Amino acid sequence: MSFVKFVVLAGGTGGARFLRGLQAAAPEASITAVVNTGDDVTMHGLRICPDLDTVMYTLGGGIDEERGWGRAGESWTVKEELAAYDADPDWFGLGDRDLATHLIRTRMLDAGYPLSAVTAALTDRWQPGVTLLPMSDQRVETHVVVTDPETGRNRAIHFQEWWVRHRAALEPSAFVQVGVDDARPAPGVVEAFAVADAILLAPSNPVVSVGTILGVPGLREALLSSPARVVGVSPIVGGAVVRGMADRCLPVLGIEVSAEGVGRHYGARTTGGLLDAWLVHTGDPADVPGVDVRSLPLLMSSSETTAAMASAALDAAGV
Amino acid sequence: MSFVKFVVLAGGTGGARFLRGLQAAAPEASITAVVNTGDDVTMHGLRICPDLDTVMYTLGGGIDEERGWGRAGESWTVKEELAAYDADPDWFGLGDRDLATHLIRTRMLDAGYPLSAVTAALTDRWQPGVTLLPMSDQRVETHVVVTDPETGRNRAIHFQEWWVRHRAALEPSAFVQVGVDDARPAPGVVEAFAVADAILLAPSNPVVSVGTILGVPGLREALLSSPARVVGVSPIVGGAVVRGMADRCLPVLGIEVSAEGVGRHYGARTTGGLLDAWLVHTGDPADVPGVDVRSLPLLMSSSETTAAMASAALDAAGV
Repeated sequence: MSFVKFVVLAGGTGGARFLRGLQAAAPEASITAVVNTGDDVTMHGLRICPDLDTVMYTLGGGIDEERGWGRAGESWTVKEELAAYDADPDWFGLGDRDLATHLIRTRMLDAGYPLSAVTAALTDRWQPGVTLLPMSDQRVETHVVVTDPETGRNRAIHFQEWWVRHRAALEPSAFVQVGVDDARPAPGVVEAFAVADAILLAPSNPVVSVGTILGVPGLREALLSSPARVVGVSPIVGGAVVRGMADRCLPVLGIEVSAEGVGRHYGARTTGGLLDAWLVHTGDPADVPGVDVRSLPLLMSSSETTAAMASAALDAAGV
Repeated sequence: MSFVKFVVLAGGTGGARFLRGLQAAAPEASITAVVNTGDDVTMHGLRICPDLDTVMYTLGGGIDEERGWGRAGESWTVKEELAAYDADPDWFGLGDRDLATHLIRTRMLDAGYPLSAVTAALTDRWQPGVTLLPMSDQRVETHVVVTDPETGRNRAIHFQEWWVRHRAALEPSAFVQVGVDDARPAPGVVEAFAVADAILLAPSNPVVSVGTILGVPGLREALLSSPARVVGVSPIVGGAVVRGMADRCLPVLGIEVSAEGVGRHYGARTTGGLLDAWLVHTGDPADVPGVDVRSLPLLMSSSETTAAMASAALDAAGV
């Protein structure tokens, strides 16, 4: 499998772990990760890209494995000091080690470098072993329409506020990709699809991770015009979300929280959807017309099981 | 001495300690500190105001007493991480605790608040017990003209680079206040002079601290039009600098490194200079025509000696 080229659409922790499994399954492959930037946010004047950083730290050996985000051995001095100043927001996990990444990113963005160039500069240190691309150099920020429990009125809050501050407890009625109309795929994304031997959808949130990536104008079309097969991996295992809060997101779009529900949402490529193949967990029923559905253990509990899962995805892609 | 009003022109560590002595000597006085901002610098996208912060932390109980700058109990995680990214500059002491102050300042400045308003917001936390004013809301940055040891050519470097990176080892041929022509005294400065009962020049660097403050157009004139007496405290004790590197700065302006030299540089108010009185250390000869020169121990080695020195300055000011 040397010299093959894969493209993976990925969110944060789940996507990062899947990518690591893929590296183990195909160590000689050239992998491009197209990562969701809809979670990106500016806090305390710092531009923060949670999913890009999670992938970079995970593949570069800097991640806090237990938490699944942020840096191993992290300290929280700056966060505590900001709180001592009563500086808003105080609910975001801004670690000291992590902060250096944000400082460099913010400084480079302010100097006019696009996010893709900033990401390339940051990966010089981490050497993640994949080409790490933001989905877009333009800002696209996911906002969540919620009902204010006090006033009863609808308001839109940043995804991070909904996710981190409210632990997704506020009932969402819509997800809005602010800025998406002016976005284009980042340099390298369309080119990567064109030469890919396989395109994989990581088991990331189908709404706010993979869905946000696919919402970038032109990106879905570029993906579908690729000669490569498109294989998705279900993030729903045993009828439940393994990690994250996709079960709070899927119903907003009328998608059933099941492997079948997500598979049907992505749809068969032959009928205008995305998928050539769909991997579901052993025992999860999934009838997705026109799609090669394969059942196997979808476990990322160890590097071995993750690699086996990635290997199965490559099989399904015919490489 | 209640209800009296003092204005102090101050740099960093020396100015901060003198101010603390003044608070001890006159606990009921209303003190306005007009602080040098010529050392201010932007590093890693953060706006850093060393002298304002040194005064704020010293009077607010947050200073590292031994070092004389930065926060007590400081850690250096972010700095180490920036170095791991090879981010320039790597020679500046950017502490984690300190960094929160810079983040808030930078964010507020970016949002359009003037430095005086930012400083007021930061002191809400520290309660330094004085009105802390930057000399100006406009940016004035001290640059040092040095001879490049490799090329033999003159070049101007930021004061911080000269001071912190090169430990003032490069021979300076001039100090340039970049931006000074467009500067005005910060809101409150002129007003403070007008109602002051005494104006004190702290034993700070006469060139790059007090000199920079006095270089703000209109500030010197406002000071001199005050009915209050102006009393200076020599930073040269026993013919040497107590702290800092004024001995590297004074010769550039042709000023002798002595209490007399600095006193004559400031000059007598009666002949177009600044001083009504000049405090020198016991035994330091100082003949400054037209100025009430007083000899006493100029020691800031303890809170008692510092308070005694401040008290003597108030005596010389006639309050």
